Amino acid sequence: MRFGLFGGPSRPPGQVGDGKSFRQFIDYVVEAEQLGFESVFLVEHHFTGAGQVSASLTLLSYLAGLTSTMRLGTAVTVMPWHQPLLLAEQAATVDIVSNGRLDFGVGRGYRANEFHGFKIDPDEAQARFEEAVGLVLKSWTSKERFNHDGRFWSFRDVIVEPQPVQNDPHPPIWVAAGSEGSVRKAAATGQRVLMDQFGSTAVCAERIGWYRDAQKQAGLPALPNQVALTRGLLLVDHPSKKAAEFERRHLMGRMIAASAQIPGQAPPANPTGPFVLDKSDDATQAATINGTPDECIGQLKALEAAGVEYVLFNDPWGGIERLRFFAREVMPAFRKARALA
Amino acid sequence: MRFGLFGGPSRPPGQVGDGKSFRQFIDYVVEAEQLGFESVFLVEHHFTGAGQVSASLTLLSYLAGLTSTMRLGTAVTVMPWHQPLLLAEQAATVDIVSNGRLDFGVGRGYRANEFHGFKIDPDEAQARFEEAVGLVLKSWTSKERFNHDGRFWSFRDVIVEPQPVQNDPHPPIWVAAGSEGSVRKAAATGQRVLMDQFGSTAVCAERIGWYRDAQKQAGLPALPNQVALTRGLLLVDHPSKKAAEFERRHLMGRMIAASAQIPGQAPPANPTGPFVLDKSDDATQAATINGTPDECIGQLKALEAAGVEYVLFNDPWGGIERLRFFAREVMPAFRKARALA
Repeated sequence: MRFGLFGGPSRPPGQVGDGKSFRQFIDYVVEAEQLGFESVFLVEHHFTGAGQVSASLTLLSYLAGLTSTMRLGTAVTVMPWHQPLLLAEQAATVDIVSNGRLDFGVGRGYRANEFHGFKIDPDEAQARFEEAVGLVLKSWTSKERFNHDGRFWSFRDVIVEPQPVQNDPHPPIWVAAGSEGSVRKAAATGQRVLMDQFGSTAVCAERIGWYRDAQKQAGLPALPNQVALTRGLLLVDHPSKKAAEFERRHLMGRMIAASAQIPGQAPPANPTGPFVLDKSDDATQAATINGTPDECIGQLKALEAAGVEYVLFNDPWGGIERLRFFAREVMPAFRKARALA
Repeated sequence: MRFGLFGGPSRPPGQVGDGKSFRQFIDYVVEAEQLGFESVFLVEHHFTGAGQVSASLTLLSYLAGLTSTMRLGTAVTVMPWHQPLLLAEQAATVDIVSNGRLDFGVGRGYRANEFHGFKIDPDEAQARFEEAVGLVLKSWTSKERFNHDGRFWSFRDVIVEPQPVQNDPHPPIWVAAGSEGSVRKAAATGQRVLMDQFGSTAVCAERIGWYRDAQKQAGLPALPNQVALTRGLLLVDHPSKKAAEFERRHLMGRMIAASAQIPGQAPPANPTGPFVLDKSDDATQAATINGTPDECIGQLKALEAAGVEYVLFNDPWGGIERLRFFAREVMPAFRKARALA
């Protein structure tokens, strides 16, 4: 089992200025690489009022210079917001400066306030997503000039450069997928899958089964780093601290709901879009890595038995102390398994 | 007098793959900082077929992690191509990760093939430029959500984050300006000016006069780093090598012309847009720093006497050896002057 990070900088409540939270996050990621975490996947959001990361590829480019082995991912780049050729250029630049460490996660967007802010019709999201992903792939791989006359974008006689250094055929594409159709489609087309942080172990097992089955039917090789699962990390050094961690997780849920809210309108019924955000203690127990090191090891072993080989941890404003504690008390149980395997 | 770099990576003729030229350029910039060069200003171009830098802010973000004191500039970001809020987010992210070293150069675009490729009407360039610059400034400085209903872009209830760390009032804005009206307007509005690499010393002197006069009339303070002049660097260690350097400069002119050409159409009459590209030896003599160290010192002293306090060097595919030679043989003549002043 391999471990990575999921998230990005944003201001903790009450903090002023965006430089401090970015610097803290950067230090956190750089030390995480030393501790054995193998990737960082940055979210992209806009207009939250919390100083969140928005230019994810720009921040990844900086992190490329401060890290040497970790994969640098987006989870996800929201395609409907971006002009696809400029986006392909930015992503290829990250791939170059990182010597081929880009993992390009793509999505349709789900937050009501972002569609509202950009004045983009949510009903267009799927069509924009498909046209944009196609254009990025063509930009990365075409050695000839091409024209494009699409519904949302048009270009004439373009060759898009620089081109990525992962060119056989291109940097990995990751999609957030949960339904049987979308998981099977990703597997059959060679895309990788990001599984959300709200599904239970049983749900994850079913989704991985779909992925591996469709991949096998398509004659594609199965690799451990093709499916990544995000989990909240609620590791504590004493059982008495568990309740406070559950409350912190519920606070995160309330903040996502507030962030997705259109100013002056009621909060959206489902602020996490296609994912089901259940703020109950039972749901948190089922869909986080929580409790003492022994409890966390047990939960991760259960995921491993369900076919999960790659876990990304989401710990908003997480102190580096928690990652150090994880690396010392939990990670060795899995390093040993990998070495034996 | 202070010195910086102007340009960006692109593949030398015959080279394959974009990773190598980017890596060479990055190494060049990092050593230049050690040698005493105080800035790098990256161009932005598209669709040349030469693997040129396109995502300038993405590359600057990477350079932020490998440098510690040099200013990180764009010369220029071509505003009509970009969605202004996403651009403001990228630029602010560079400003944060560099601890406030962003110099944001802005322009309208001039290459025919870029307007053609993006399918943007050149007649709209000025209006797009003005709307985009206004939106970037509002994005960087507004602490409240705002609406925008423009000719080219519209947004609703947005607050744009992260915000830059240079916030008194915002990162410096640089404009490419040459006419009396545009130079005076920049000075009066607190913008800095990038002067092109084709004007003679006498032309530069006149432009700086306009800038300082308009600045004085507006009651704004005069600082040495408000006007930067770009020059080709044709420094050689022996007079016999000068002719080859002039030919290299002419090759650059021909390549700019070819890069600005719409595929299948005749080369543009004026490939450098508002700037006059004169490929004669006389023009090259008048508008480059060329020859032996003593000759270069003399030319730079003449610029200094004309009021130039900041020179950016453009040396396409320039080897680091030339910068080392410059730092050793030319720079000390000016370091001493600065120390005495």
